[in-house]
Amino acid sequence: MIREIEVKSGMKVSELVDQLSATAFNARRLGEACRIYREMVESDVFIFFTLAGAMIPAGMRRIVDGFLKNGFANALVTTGANVTHEIAEALGYRHKMGREDADDAELGRKSINRIYDVFIENEAFEGVEQFVAGIFQDLDGEFASYEILWEIGKKIGADSFLKTAYRKRIPVFCPTLHDSVIGLHLFVYGQRLRYSPQKDVKSMVDLCFQENRMGVFIVGGGVPKNFTLQAMLLSKGFDYAIQITTDSPQWGGLSGATLDEAKSWCKLKENAKTATVYCDATIALPMIYGYLLENV
Amino acid sequence: MIREIEVKSGMKVSELVDQLSATAFNARRLGEACRIYREMVESDVFIFFTLAGAMIPAGMRRIVDGFLKNGFANALVTTGANVTHEIAEALGYRHKMGREDADDAELGRKSINRIYDVFIENEAFEGVEQFVAGIFQDLDGEFASYEILWEIGKKIGADSFLKTAYRKRIPVFCPTLHDSVIGLHLFVYGQRLRYSPQKDVKSMVDLCFQENRMGVFIVGGGVPKNFTLQAMLLSKGFDYAIQITTDSPQWGGLSGATLDEAKSWCKLKENAKTATVYCDATIALPMIYGYLLENV
Amino acid sequence: MIREIEVKSGMKVSELVDQLSATAFNARRLGEACRIYREMVESDVFIFFTLAGAMIPAGMRRIVDGFLKNGFANALVTTGANVTHEIAEALGYRHKMGREDADDAELGRKSINRIYDVFIENEAFEGVEQFVAGIFQDLDGEFASYEILWEIGKKIGADSFLKTAYRKRIPVFCPTLHDSVIGLHLFVYGQRLRYSPQKDVKSMVDLCFQENRMGVFIVGGGVPKNFTLQAMLLSKGFDYAIQITTDSPQWGGLSGATLDEAKSWCKLKENAKTATVYCDATIALPMIYGYLLENV
Amino acid sequence: MIREIEVKSGMKVSELVDQLSATAFNARRLGEACRIYREMVESDVFIFFTLAGAMIPAGMRRIVDGFLKNGFANALVTTGANVTHEIAEALGYRHKMGREDADDAELGRKSINRIYDVFIENEAFEGVEQFVAGIFQDLDGEFASYEILWEIGKKIGADSFLKTAYRKRIPVFCPTLHDSVIGLHLFVYGQRLRYSPQKDVKSMVDLCFQENRMGVFIVGGGVPKNFTLQAMLLSKGFDYAIQITTDSPQWGGLSGATLDEAKSWCKLKENAKTATVYCDATIALPMIYGYLLENV
Repeated sequence: MIREIEVKSGMKVSELVDQLSATAFNARRLGEACRIYREMVESDVFIFFTLAGAMIPAGMRRIVDGFLKNGFANALVTTGANVTHEIAEALGYRHKMGREDADDAELGRKSINRIYDVFIENEAFEGVEQFVAGIFQDLDGEFASYEILWEIGKKIGADSFLKTAYRKRIPVFCPTLHDSVIGLHLFVYGQRLRYSPQKDVKSMVDLCFQENRMGVFIVGGGVPKNFTLQAMLLSKGFDYAIQITTDSPQWGGLSGATLDEAKSWCKLKENAKTATVYCDATIALPMIYGYLLENV
Repeated sequence: MIREIEVKSGMKVSELVDQLSATAFNARRLGEACRIYREMVESDVFIFFTLAGAMIPAGMRRIVDGFLKNGFANALVTTGANVTHEIAEALGYRHKMGREDADDAELGRKSINRIYDVFIENEAFEGVEQFVAGIFQDLDGEFASYEILWEIGKKIGADSFLKTAYRKRIPVFCPTLHDSVIGLHLFVYGQRLRYSPQKDVKSMVDLCFQENRMGVFIVGGGVPKNFTLQAMLLSKGFDYAIQITTDSPQWGGLSGATLDEAKSWCKLKENAKTATVYCDATIALPMIYGYLLENV
Repeated sequence: MIREIEVKSGMKVSELVDQLSATAFNARRLGEACRIYREMVESDVFIFFTLAGAMIPAGMRRIVDGFLKNGFANALVTTGANVTHEIAEALGYRHKMGREDADDAELGRKSINRIYDVFIENEAFEGVEQFVAGIFQDLDGEFASYEILWEIGKKIGADSFLKTAYRKRIPVFCPTLHDSVIGLHLFVYGQRLRYSPQKDVKSMVDLCFQENRMGVFIVGGGVPKNFTLQAMLLSKGFDYAIQITTDSPQWGGLSGATLDEAKSWCKLKENAKTATVYCDATIALPMIYGYLLENV
Repeated sequence: MIREIEVKSGMKVSELVDQLSATAFNARRLGEACRIYREMVESDVFIFFTLAGAMIPAGMRRIVDGFLKNGFANALVTTGANVTHEIAEALGYRHKMGREDADDAELGRKSINRIYDVFIENEAFEGVEQFVAGIFQDLDGEFASYEILWEIGKKIGADSFLKTAYRKRIPVFCPTLHDSVIGLHLFVYGQRLRYSPQKDVKSMVDLCFQENRMGVFIVGGGVPKNFTLQAMLLSKGFDYAIQITTDSPQWGGLSGATLDEAKSWCKLKENAKTATVYCDATIALPMIYGYLLENV
C-alpha cells in the first residue's frame, strides 16, 4: 500500500527517508537504498564504494570521508579527477560557485576551469603539481593505485578521505589515475615510479575472494562501477548492490545498465538485494549518509 | 565558495537544504529553489502551482493539499489524471506498491493497471465513476474546469486537495480534464454539462492581470506548465519561477525548456528570479515542502 | 545474430534502415519500427498519428503532410502549438535557425521568441491572429477541435497538413487547442464558437469502435499520446503501437512509459506488435518516412 | 531560415543528412557534425576518434574499421570492453539479438551475458582468453596499450579494426585495458608484460604536440573522451570537436559536458568548430559514416 507521505515541520532527514520508502518512483528507491545500506553495515558486509562524477568539486568530500571514517565503506574505487580535486581542496584551494552559462572562452583566458556550475582556478592545479611532484619523485618501483594514494594520504596535513584511507589502511583504487591532472604529473615526475594497473586488478580480485558477504555502493557508473563488478567475475558475486545514477538503461551502456543485467554476468548473486535510484548524487548521497549516521 | 557539505546525525530536512545551497549541480538548485520559494511566500507573491506527472499515484497528495492549506499556492494547475487518482484516494481506494518489471499482460487480465511501480485496480475507477456520475448529471451549463472541480470538492468527505480548494476558493485548473478517466465520464454523464476550455483561458488570463507580483512553481512540465506560462503572454510576465523536471533542454520540447527560454517569450520578466532542479519530483517536492513548513 | 552493419557510399535511407534492423539498442528499434509501420500500412490498419513536441518549428511539416497524403495516417492528434506554427508557416512566416545559447532577455526585447535553437518573430503570431480571427468570428455553435481545424484548412491557400486534412476529411484532433497561441485567439474572437472537448472525446471513442484493426504511431508523448490511448480504454485495444520518445520510463510519467505498461490498462492488446525508439524525432521521423515512401 | 525538410523515395543517406542540416534540434546537429567532419578530412586534420559505449556488441565494428581504413581517424581511443568484444567477433564468436526484459538470473545460469538487448555466451570469452593468453605470455617488458593491441592485431586472421590499426600503424589507445575481460587475462597471463598507462600518456601528449591541426570525434564520453581532451591540456587545444552522446550537461559529469566547457580548460581552442549530437550512436554513427563515404 502506498502511504500518503506526511511531511512535518522540523522533520529529520531520516524521518523523511522513512516516509519516502512507502511512496513510488525514485523516492521509494531512495528509501529502499537506505534500508539496504543499513542492513549491509549492520551485517558486517564488506562494502565497495565506487564514486564517479565530479563529486569532490561539488562539495561532497566530507561525506566521502565520513563513509570511510564511520565504516560505511571498506574500499573506495574512484576516478583520477576526484582524487586530483580532493588534493586541491586538502591543500586549501577552493572550488567556487560559478554559473553553467558563463562565457567559456573568457574563463579560459582568465585561467578559470569550469565543471558545469563550479569554477576552479589553474593555480589550484599548480599547487597540486608541487605537492605530488615530490611524492612521485621519491617513489621507486611498481605501485598499485591505492599504494600511491596512501603515500599521498600520509603527506596530507588537512582532513581528507585520502588521509583517512591511509590511517585506516582502506584501499582507494583509482584505475584511471592516469586519466587526470595528477596522471599528467605522474607521467612527468614519476620517472622511477610505475603505476601498475595489473597490481590493482590483483588486489581487487583478492578482495573479491574473501569469506565475508560483499556489497557494492555505486555512485555514477563509469570505470569505478565496471572495474568493481568485473573483479567479481572470477568469484561468487555480490550479495548487495545499490546504484545512484542519472544515466538510463535504454542507451545500452554500462553506466546506465540495470543491476539485474549484472546478474546475467554473475557479478551479482541471483538473490542479491538491490536498489537503483535515478537521481543526481549531490542530492541522494547526503540523504543516504544522513540516514546511516542516525540509524546505524 | 563551495562549502563542503556537512551532514550530521539527526539533521533536519531544512538544515540539509541549507547545506545543499552552497554545493553544486542539482543539490545547489534545490537549495536555491527553496530560498526563492520562501521569498515568494513571505512577499505575498501570487503563486501558481503547476503539477504534471503521476504525483498523486506516487503518494504526494497530502503535500499538494498542504501547499493549498498553508498558502504556498494560490492557484493549482494540474492534469486530469492527477484529479482522477485524487478522487479515487479520497473515496478510499488505494494505490499499491507494485513493480515496474511486472508481467503487464497478466496485470491486464487481472484488471490491475500499472503506473511504473504503482498498481491500481479497475474497481477504483468504477468507484470514481459512480461518484462523479451523479455530480456530472446534476450540472447544467458551461463550466470552467475549476468550477467542476469545486463541485467535486464540495461532495468529497475525506481530506483532499479538492476539498481544500473548494473551501478556500482556490481555483484548480485542469485544462486537460477531458484527457483522463473522468474525462470519459464527463463525456458519458455530462450531457447538459459543457466543459469550456475558453472559460479556463479567460480565468487564467484574468488572474495574470492582477496587481500582485506573481510566481509559478512548475512540477513536471506538460500542459500545466505551458497553459500557465502562456496566460502571461498577454500580461507583464512572472516575477518568479521554479521548475522541477526530469526532462532536458536539448530535445527542444517545452517540458524540458529552460526558464530563460520563457524570457524570450516575455512569459517571465527579464530579471525574474528562477531556479530549475533536475530531479524526480517525488524526492524534491517533499524536501521543498518540508523546508517551507519550517521556514515560513 | 547481430549483423555487423555495412554502410556503403550512396546507400539509400531505406537500405540503411534495413541494416539497422539487425544491430542493437535504438538502431534496431528504429528498424523494427519501420517494419511494423510498413505492415500497418500494407494491412490497411487504421492508424492514429500522435504528434507532440515542437515538430513544426523544427521543419517537419511536409513530412506530417506526407503522412496524411500517402495514407500513412488516418487520424492526427497533435498540440495547439504545432497547429499554431503550422498556420504561421502556411501564411509565409518562417522559423529561423537560431542558437540555444542566445541572450533571451535581448531576444525578448526584440520580439523574437525562442524554441531551443529556433527563432520566430512576434509578427508571425500577429499574422496568425489576423487569419484565425475572421474564421473564429464566423463560427457559431459547438465544435470539436478537428471541425475547427477543417475550417482553417479550408481557408489556407498554401500547402499544409491542415489543408490536406480538410480535403481528405482526415480528423486532426487537438485536445489542447486552448493551450496555445491560437487558444488565446479562440478566447478573444470565438465569442459564439464553443470548443467542445467532449465532442472530441466522443469522436475519438467512436473511431476506436470501428471494425478495422487499429494502430498508433506516437511521436513525443504528452496529451496526444494519452488522449489516444485512453480512447481505447472503452474498446478492444490497439493491435500495433510505435513510439518515438526522448523521455525515460524510470521517472514514472506517461510520456516515458513503456508500451508494455499500456497493456496492463488494456489500451494495447496483449499480443500487440510494438516498438519504442528512444531518439530525437527530428532524426527518427524523416528516416521512418523515407523508409515508408520507398517500401509501401 | 529553417527549411521544411523534404524526404523523397529512394533518397540517399547523404541527401537526407543535407536536408537535416537546415532543420533544428539534433537533426540539425547531425547535419553540422557531418559537415565539420567532412571539413576535417578534406583539410588533413589529425583526427582522434574516441569510442565508449558497447558499440562493438551493437554491430558497429565494420564502421569503426572503415573509419581507420578510409583515413577518417588517425588515432583511436577506446575501452577494454570494445576491444574484448572485437576480438571475440574476429575469432568468429557472435553477439546475438536478445531482449532487454529477459530473465537475468536464468541467463546467468545458462552462461549467457546480457548487454541491454544483446546476448553473448561465456564461451566467447573463453575463446578470447585462449587467443590472448599466448600473446600476453610472449610479451616481455613495458608496453603502451596501443603496442599491446598492435600485437593482437598482428595475430588476428579475420577483418578487424585491430588488424587494420596494426597494418596502418594507427595507434589504438585503450587507457582502461585493465578494466575489461582481457584486463583480467592480462593480469593472469601477462606475468612479464607490464601495461604502462604512463607510456600511453606520453604517446598521447606527443601526438598533441604535432604541427598539424587537430580534431576529435567523441562517441559516448567516459575515459576515452577525458583521456584525449586532457592530453591537449599541455598543448594548444583542438581545432575541431564533434560529440555524440546520450548524456546531458545538467548532471555535471564529464560525459555529458558541453564542448564549450572544454574551452574553459583550453582543451579546445576558443574558435574551435564544434557540434554535439544528442543521439544513440548506433543511429548517428552509421549516418555520419555514410555521409563521409559519399562526400570525401
